[in-house]
Amino acid sequence: MSQSLHLTAFMRPVSLHTGAWRYPGAYADANFNFTHLKAFAQALERAKFDAFFMADHLAVLNMPVEALKRSHTVTSFEPFTLLSALAAVTERIGLAATASTTFDEPYHVARRFASLDHISGGRAAWNIVTTSNPDAARNFGLSDHVEHGERYKRAREFFDVVTGLWDSFADDAIIRDQESGIFFDPERMHVLDHKGEEFSVRGPLNIARPVQGWPVIVQAGQSEPGKQLAAETAEVVFAAPRDFATARALYADIKGRMPAAGRNPDHLKILPAAMIVIGETVEEAREKRARLDSLVHYDSAIASLSIALGHDASGFDPDGPLPEIPETNASKSGRAQVLRLAEEEKLTVRQLAQRYGGYAGLAFVGTKETIADEMERWLHEQAADGFTCVFPFLPQGLEDVTGTLVPELQRRGLFRTDYEGATLREHLGLPRPANRFFP
Amino acid sequence: MSQSLHLTAFMRPVSLHTGAWRYPGAYADANFNFTHLKAFAQALERAKFDAFFMADHLAVLNMPVEALKRSHTVTSFEPFTLLSALAAVTERIGLAATASTTFDEPYHVARRFASLDHISGGRAAWNIVTTSNPDAARNFGLSDHVEHGERYKRAREFFDVVTGLWDSFADDAIIRDQESGIFFDPERMHVLDHKGEEFSVRGPLNIARPVQGWPVIVQAGQSEPGKQLAAETAEVVFAAPRDFATARALYADIKGRMPAAGRNPDHLKILPAAMIVIGETVEEAREKRARLDSLVHYDSAIASLSIALGHDASGFDPDGPLPEIPETNASKSGRAQVLRLAEEEKLTVRQLAQRYGGYAGLAFVGTKETIADEMERWLHEQAADGFTCVFPFLPQGLEDVTGTLVPELQRRGLFRTDYEGATLREHLGLPRPANRFFP
Ligand SMILES: Cc1cc2nc3c(=O)[nH]c(=O)nc-3n(C[C@H](O)[C@H](O)[C@H](O)COP(=O)(O)O)c2cc1C
Ligand SMILES: Cc1cc2nc3c(=O)[nH]c(=O)nc-3n(C[C@H](O)[C@H](O)[C@H](O)COP(=O)(O)O)c2cc1C
Repeated sequence: MSQSLHLTAFMRPVSLHTGAWRYPGAYADANFNFTHLKAFAQALERAKFDAFFMADHLAVLNMPVEALKRSHTVTSFEPFTLLSALAAVTERIGLAATASTTFDEPYHVARRFASLDHISGGRAAWNIVTTSNPDAARNFGLSDHVEHGERYKRAREFFDVVTGLWDSFADDAIIRDQESGIFFDPERMHVLDHKGEEFSVRGPLNIARPVQGWPVIVQAGQSEPGKQLAAETAEVVFAAPRDFATARALYADIKGRMPAAGRNPDHLKILPAAMIVIGETVEEAREKRARLDSLVHYDSAIASLSIALGHDASGFDPDGPLPEIPETNASKSGRAQVLRLAEEEKLTVRQLAQRYGGYAGLAFVGTKETIADEMERWLHEQAADGFTCVFPFLPQGLEDVTGTLVPELQRRGLFRTDYEGATLREHLGLPRPANRFFP
Repeated sequence: MSQSLHLTAFMRPVSLHTGAWRYPGAYADANFNFTHLKAFAQALERAKFDAFFMADHLAVLNMPVEALKRSHTVTSFEPFTLLSALAAVTERIGLAATASTTFDEPYHVARRFASLDHISGGRAAWNIVTTSNPDAARNFGLSDHVEHGERYKRAREFFDVVTGLWDSFADDAIIRDQESGIFFDPERMHVLDHKGEEFSVRGPLNIARPVQGWPVIVQAGQSEPGKQLAAETAEVVFAAPRDFATARALYADIKGRMPAAGRNPDHLKILPAAMIVIGETVEEAREKRARLDSLVHYDSAIASLSIALGHDASGFDPDGPLPEIPETNASKSGRAQVLRLAEEEKLTVRQLAQRYGGYAGLAFVGTKETIADEMERWLHEQAADGFTCVFPFLPQGLEDVTGTLVPELQRRGLFRTDYEGATLREHLGLPRPANRFFP
């Protein structure tokens, strides 16, 4: 259990909320205008955030066209190019990129993260995903998605290969003695020669060991094999619990698996994703959120809701409550989440659709004090080691967090007032991994 | 035929010369110290270079360990991460990255270049290579290298898929009307649905059309299919002629193929790679080069020479002339090049080995005037549209070019004194490609 919070910013492609680009003052072009991303990253660095996280998908998101044409997700930067550019204009903030183990190659992934780690002076992190969007498969020569269990099997071996490649050179292998002309010591280079069920990769990597030894390993899978992979490999988990109770259960579950995997539970930070909407009063915050939700077009919202329910909702009375609907084969957890939301907040069909079509995950909506109270509780009661902040809209939603919530957390001693170390590992309080071939 | 020169900088991994890191004043850590690369790129931009080119290999270069341990090529940045970082700290210079069609996926390559083009405001270029290093195959699950003809067949289709993906959105597809809530017009999005012999890629790309329409296409293959691919697709050719005569022949050859491919020969710029060593006098330049060559360790040099000759040269008298040696199965062109070098410059075995082990390609060694004369001749006699400059050592070799040769070329009206346009296409005088689906 940490004594203070870790905060990362979840940028995908800018805000996750589908109405965000329409909010008053929003930069509608931020998904492909680097100037804005640079300003966001620099503001987060001034607020001493642990990391800027660029989520990623390998296809246009699968939505009905009525929703898609209203969605800013249709265009976005690619993470390595974006984060490398940000590395050059920031100095301390961590840079976490998603890379897929299902549709990429270990040699490429190992190299890019090692290179980002060298460019940024030790600030890179890899969010290992197995890619749940089935449309991605069709962009990579497959007609069907790779099966879930097989994806995780491949992910586990992918991790072994990538970390093995990062260990190609001992930390002291590169001598570069201009006098003798010896650039490196071949005895301190390891040829991996990996031959596994999924991969054959010879190595060595053609880049010196990363500054952090290994870039920080992040995992965000929520399934049984996802949690197991996290317990075995991850140093940060981006979680998506719906509330405090599920967060605590998840926290105990994943950390509980770690000793059996030979790991210290302190070497993993669990950071649930939470949208943060701040007002001068709780009422004002709720109004901001309602206003934001109202920017999700009804056609688009109802299309998303129909998919989640597995039932065409377009004929329902928008201003009435959600009617009884028969169970179908649609994703059970998605459907259950919608039904719960409708019941808990007594939303009309329209509000429910807009909420669901906007951002359906965990949200802290209140004043800086009420939100700091919540965060403090999650931290102290072992539901979280910090949060992966989702900004409701940009730039204002981000400035609300950095300008009001962060100072409040700092006042309470819950968040750093300056970076203490230089690398992301140091920000997170994580050990630098030993080289497995040159311990 | 252009009336003025185009200049790009060939950075791989910093200098191609294997002795460069030992030259007095050289930064021995430049291959993994971003600060140096940033300074180089900014200096090249101040000199109004067309582009900074990051060459790339997908394995540690295949050399005997005696040579390898003395080579700075063992570690290097990965091009997308490096060039994206440079994009954030430069404003006008083009950024050309190598990406392999043999060991990567069209969807990834299309996305990364599109993203780099957006981040840089239209400065990206893609050097299409089929990867000649056979060791690369073993880092990607193959035991043998993909056969040469097959590699080029794949490259051609890869190009079609990537350019098709870049055309996923019409230039005016992204509307982002905050009032109506329409982000883009689905009628102006094209789903590629490519099904070819090598690839099945559905699309669309999840990024808006690149600023340049397409990033600039570069090709550096020297074989028959390489030249044909260039004639069909390339807008820049990085060539490697050994002298003026072969350069003119190559120039005529590639440009001569273009009309049959339906292309205007002016829409391709041929830029031979040339190492540039500048002195106050020709004699001083030759001394610099000799000094540089002498920094190539004899063990390492002789190992490289032996491979090139297909014959163990380690027993030869280092200070005598190259003895007669029987022909073998080794690469014929490499062997012929060595023999020619030995004869033309009357080099001893040691000098030959060091020359060959250092940098065996075309070199302009002289004063700013003699080199400008040469360049002018190549330009006016249709041997080149400019050059891909290889710096013998860094930073000094680069500063010699930007500080003395470039002003001399500018004085003669052979090189721009400022950028006229904003994009790399504009620097190169290349048209912006029409969108094939939304002409
Ligand atoms: C905070 C968070 C961030 C995520 N980021 C990504 C991402 O960038 N790319 C992606 O394909 N999936 C992302 N996911 C999805 C997960 O990787 C995972 O696929 C999903 O939670 C379903 O779990 P499972 O894969 O274990 O079945 C993210 C999930 C969470 C909770
Ligand atoms: C100036 C220049 C730059 C090159 N850059 C690269 C590179 O970055 N990566 C690579 O694998 N090959 C590179 N090559 C090699 C060519 O792509 C090509 O493989 C080689 O010239 C052999 O020709 P072929 O492939 O047509 O047989 C380069 C060649 C030249 C002349």
